[in-house]
Amino acid sequence: MTKVFIHGPSLSPFGKFNGSHLSLSYQTVKDSVTEFGSHKLEFLIYASFSPDRYTKDFHLPAKLVQALGLKHPYAIRMETASSSGASALQLGVNLIQSGRYKHGLVVATEIMSQLNREENNLLLGSVLSDSQRNLGMSMAQGGAMITNRYLELYGYKQEDLFAISKKLHDNGLKNPIAQIKKNLSPEDYEKQPMITSPLGLYDISPLSDGSASVILSVDKSGISIKGMGHGTAPFQAGGDPSFDASVHAFASAYKEAGIGPEEIQIAELHDAFTPFEIIGAEDAGLFGRGEALAKVISKITHPEGQLPINSSGGLKSRGHPVGASGLAQIVELCRSFKQREELRLGLAHSIGGLATNNFATVLEHGK
Amino acid sequence: MTKVFIHGPSLSPFGKFNGSHLSLSYQTVKDSVTEFGSHKLEFLIYASFSPDRYTKDFHLPAKLVQALGLKHPYAIRMETASSSGASALQLGVNLIQSGRYKHGLVVATEIMSQLNREENNLLLGSVLSDSQRNLGMSMAQGGAMITNRYLELYGYKQEDLFAISKKLHDNGLKNPIAQIKKNLSPEDYEKQPMITSPLGLYDISPLSDGSASVILSVDKSGISIKGMGHGTAPFQAGGDPSFDASVHAFASAYKEAGIGPEEIQIAELHDAFTPFEIIGAEDAGLFGRGEALAKVISKITHPEGQLPINSSGGLKSRGHPVGASGLAQIVELCRSFKQREELRLGLAHSIGGLATNNFATVLEHGK
Repeated sequence: MTKVFIHGPSLSPFGKFNGSHLSLSYQTVKDSVTEFGSHKLEFLIYASFSPDRYTKDFHLPAKLVQALGLKHPYAIRMETASSSGASALQLGVNLIQSGRYKHGLVVATEIMSQLNREENNLLLGSVLSDSQRNLGMSMAQGGAMITNRYLELYGYKQEDLFAISKKLHDNGLKNPIAQIKKNLSPEDYEKQPMITSPLGLYDISPLSDGSASVILSVDKSGISIKGMGHGTAPFQAGGDPSFDASVHAFASAYKEAGIGPEEIQIAELHDAFTPFEIIGAEDAGLFGRGEALAKVISKITHPEGQLPINSSGGLKSRGHPVGASGLAQIVELCRSFKQREELRLGLAHSIGGLATNNFATVLEHGK
Repeated sequence: MTKVFIHGPSLSPFGKFNGSHLSLSYQTVKDSVTEFGSHKLEFLIYASFSPDRYTKDFHLPAKLVQALGLKHPYAIRMETASSSGASALQLGVNLIQSGRYKHGLVVATEIMSQLNREENNLLLGSVLSDSQRNLGMSMAQGGAMITNRYLELYGYKQEDLFAISKKLHDNGLKNPIAQIKKNLSPEDYEKQPMITSPLGLYDISPLSDGSASVILSVDKSGISIKGMGHGTAPFQAGGDPSFDASVHAFASAYKEAGIGPEEIQIAELHDAFTPFEIIGAEDAGLFGRGEALAKVISKITHPEGQLPINSSGGLKSRGHPVGASGLAQIVELCRSFKQREELRLGLAHSIGGLATNNFATVLEHGK
């Protein structure tokens, strides 16, 4: 298969943006596109969960093509709910590997702040299955159920989750584009509003606006896509605290990359709820079952640890503009590669819906 | 490039459907999927313009995967407004040609009847550019402007448009799944309500519910995709009555197919407004500039003519469920191939937005 390289990774500030999906996307990509050569771009993939509901933005691919002055690219919008940015990246790689295109732009944007929290919860909850919705279940309740199972099965307590939340908040303090800037104390965590036990305010990612983009190309750069995997499966909260769709995604990505999980040196995992980071790390085979929370507590996944996970602050602290987060992880890994020359292999992991449409991507640095 | 074949083309009845995008899609695809072997399907592309606005359906790829019992396919939704079905087909071909997948399902569904006409017009009008919307322009007005230009430039009259409308309504009478069943008389046409001059009621496609699907595979069948093209460009109503995005799409598709327009034996062209059929035919090079309307009048594009165009009844008469129409054309060409063994090369053409994101596909029969 043709090797595909990443150029011009770009992130907007995450937080609150007063404008349209089109304007934020344009601001995020324009410098990369100009620098790379806009005339060379043969496709544009636009990822977003629901720009029509959030800001009444329609027909964004053609409008962005026109704003950027691109010449007749294959231009589409696509989405897989909260993993849209990750699935868009994989789609772009597939387009180049088809042999029909050599260079293209992938941009992922979501602007959620113009709807209030209740409207957002209804919108996000609509990705749940009919049977889940008929029970009145919310996304957070699904996350809470599997977290309770994790804590019970492996003998942890609710207060142990503080270690994840603290790490993510600390990492966010150091990320210039992060939305949440808070030096979280144990007292803050103890007194936090409980949203749905055991998940409190500091365990749940915020409503966010943000945009991420990369240019994919056969032209060489320092970073390439080494392996991709995906999984689609129903959410299960019984048995092992694990997501079948993630397990399948990771296994496929490792197989294509020709590596095992022990070779991963840095990861960005989907922590829409903080405990999803540890479930993701175990689904990825980075740690054994039940071990990941202990690894966080002992700082092995901190930025200076043996295996940094979510150095960016993750969805919890960098922010979670749902359709953009999966691509933002890729951009964050690129940043980490640039900051730490010794890193060779990075892993990104994105969850769509309540863990039903998930993606894993292995990036390689330096070849 | 790997040759990609079509299996199990399927169309729902077009018209009014009381249900969700998920249920109509499931009904449309299930027999094809079962017959082909659901375990073999490695991707699912779901095309729809706005299921979230039309029927509050979200996260459809994962839900349809589960309903069909597919095993971890790469499953995404994508859209390019009213050309979504066509761009989804092209995306599926690209996925197979990437070498990563051998078989996949493409399904395109739209259910528009649960919003009233005014809500629909607002929704469809939102694909227009800001400058167009700021003028208060509607989709139909854009169509009317370029039609007036066509009539004036080439010396036709408004009543000459009857020939297109009559042909499409007659073709619809013979298509079992068509939405509009009307034996249109010259008097009907003369007395029709004028919507936006020169376009009357019988020149504008209806609000429709409908679904189309195909399975794409490296396994041989009697029909393959021979060439694909796309174009993205702003709408222009001045100068020649022509859409730059269509011209580019046709030229690219012919180039990839290694043929010229004179080899096309049957076509399904995007007639959201009846005169778009003749503009499309000229953009495709099937006829010279200004000649296409005369060819319709002289019955050359009738089903028994030398070059049948829109034998299905087209968007006008079969119906135009916006995100599904582009794929429905492909299924209609497959039907024509089965009915008329001598046909070898067919052309499909789909317009996204007001002619800003357009697609052309050449199908080959018998190899």
